[in-house]
Amino acid sequence: MRTRPIPATFTTHIMEKPIALALHGGCGTILRQNLSASEEAAYEAALSEALEAGWRHLEGGASALIAVEATVRALEDCPLFNAGRGSVFTAAGIHEMDAAIMEGLHRRAGAVAGVRQVRNPISLARTVMEHSGFVLLCGEGAETFAREQGIPFEEADYFATEARWRQLVAARGKAAVVMDHDPAEVKFGTVGAVALDQEGNLAAATSTGGLTNKRYGRIGDSPIIGSGTYADNRSCAVSCTGYGEEFIRSTVARDVAARMELLGESLDIAAAHVIHERLLEVNGSGGLIAVDGAGNITLPFNTEGMYRAWRSNKDNSHGVAIFS
Amino acid sequence: MRTRPIPATFTTHIMEKPIALALHGGCGTILRQNLSASEEAAYEAALSEALEAGWRHLEGGASALIAVEATVRALEDCPLFNAGRGSVFTAAGIHEMDAAIMEGLHRRAGAVAGVRQVRNPISLARTVMEHSGFVLLCGEGAETFAREQGIPFEEADYFATEARWRQLVAARGKAAVVMDHDPAEVKFGTVGAVALDQEGNLAAATSTGGLTNKRYGRIGDSPIIGSGTYADNRSCAVSCTGYGEEFIRSTVARDVAARMELLGESLDIAAAHVIHERLLEVNGSGGLIAVDGAGNITLPFNTEGMYRAWRSNKDNSHGVAIFS
Repeated sequence: MRTRPIPATFTTHIMEKPIALALHGGCGTILRQNLSASEEAAYEAALSEALEAGWRHLEGGASALIAVEATVRALEDCPLFNAGRGSVFTAAGIHEMDAAIMEGLHRRAGAVAGVRQVRNPISLARTVMEHSGFVLLCGEGAETFAREQGIPFEEADYFATEARWRQLVAARGKAAVVMDHDPAEVKFGTVGAVALDQEGNLAAATSTGGLTNKRYGRIGDSPIIGSGTYADNRSCAVSCTGYGEEFIRSTVARDVAARMELLGESLDIAAAHVIHERLLEVNGSGGLIAVDGAGNITLPFNTEGMYRAWRSNKDNSHGVAIFS
Repeated sequence: MRTRPIPATFTTHIMEKPIALALHGGCGTILRQNLSASEEAAYEAALSEALEAGWRHLEGGASALIAVEATVRALEDCPLFNAGRGSVFTAAGIHEMDAAIMEGLHRRAGAVAGVRQVRNPISLARTVMEHSGFVLLCGEGAETFAREQGIPFEEADYFATEARWRQLVAARGKAAVVMDHDPAEVKFGTVGAVALDQEGNLAAATSTGGLTNKRYGRIGDSPIIGSGTYADNRSCAVSCTGYGEEFIRSTVARDVAARMELLGESLDIAAAHVIHERLLEVNGSGGLIAVDGAGNITLPFNTEGMYRAWRSNKDNSHGVAIFS
């Protein structure tokens, strides 16, 4: 007996399970006149490659958690972005990186703050979530845990780039703590990803090198669950980039999800309210990426530009962009 | 010409501006049979004194921010509670304390994590809020900032108590990270305060010594804005105590405020929902204290007991309690 061909409608149904992925590589006063054509092309290529790294997993049926980790790892490995390799320098001339990951089915989360030589902080955050019994580990303690778990480390040189060192020298000259500063730019250097998988599960991941010339063990919003990173299957997954202090005070990521959950707002409306109204109450600037369970994606920001890329099979949307 | 006496109604109006203050000293399996009469009396006296320390400020017209700081300082200075003096020991036999403070008018916030020898971490948190330009400082960096600001330090001996050392020895014997553990108790040792002042401003403060035998630079919910601590004049001020990881994953403090702000729920209903429904989704146990702009106070918990005290001139409520 020959097997019956799968009915076209059934195939279509299978194929149409929504999957979606979005990423950001930071935001700020990113203006076309300050980026050369080759720089723009390099950023776009890096954003596309990171998107592809995560999308392959989603298409293959992997979890949103795996997809956002893979996407953020690709961005951490790229020296163009302020996370992992290419992180900015602290006042002490070292790197202190933060990262967080969260999945929306059980609201499990893991995060690390102030790690110095972990190659991929986002993978350490996931290991914290899965194997530590804790949510947030900090500093040397986090690195002790990482070594016990066999997480790869790199020498300090690995993370350093000439461009970031020049930024530190410039910032020291002005005695300023600056936001991933280029001469004509104020950039909030952070990377992040959000995803919806075939099972309908959401996940979010964020990673950052923090602020150039920062002191005092400052921790921004990236590793703070509910501020820089949040995921709940009932509403959405969110990853933020911006001035971290205002994002903490405004619990930005949780607020987008809370408006969907409690007010029934759409993803677009909820995210726009938080970025364009609530955040402005405290003069906060930045942006976020978010995805919901239907495969909708939103990428609002109140700065001039945000490095971003997205793909959803819900409406076959697919893009890479830098400017507004 | 003689001045007219102030009309009685006006005097009454002035006198009736609502002020309110509540505090907690941790929660857990606190059972009457495990506390001797003298221990119970000692806890009640300490809770009353801390309440009085903050209430004097509110009555005198000081801000909610000053009142919650004063209340938490009194609890930090008392060796009975797991914050400041009397903090539990980490696995390394030292103290790593966390604290946060937030005011509801401008949603300003300050927090510290992993400080070892700052006498009153809550006062450092306030100084971070007012003078650092950051929200959250961690570890040695936070202590460097504290020294620059002239914040008082103590020798390690100051924080140590015999009872806490015995808890560490017991925990090491079981290779357990425990929640402020007594032989017959699991307690979530944290202290906190929330207040409403005569100007109608809200504030919240939380301070903790963390977990006995903790490792890896673990940070709990206390210093996380939106999880252990939150204040917004539009809704309420909240300070939490419980298993920190579940409080982070559930953004407990922000969720109470969000339900009031977005759903129009009363303080009581919103706080009860978060403690008795949302937190249980992740098997979270603990409690919180909260106050709103009308001087209402709520103190829900899903454990056997919570050290607590409260006072409001709205309904002349005033009390100290330990058990449910």
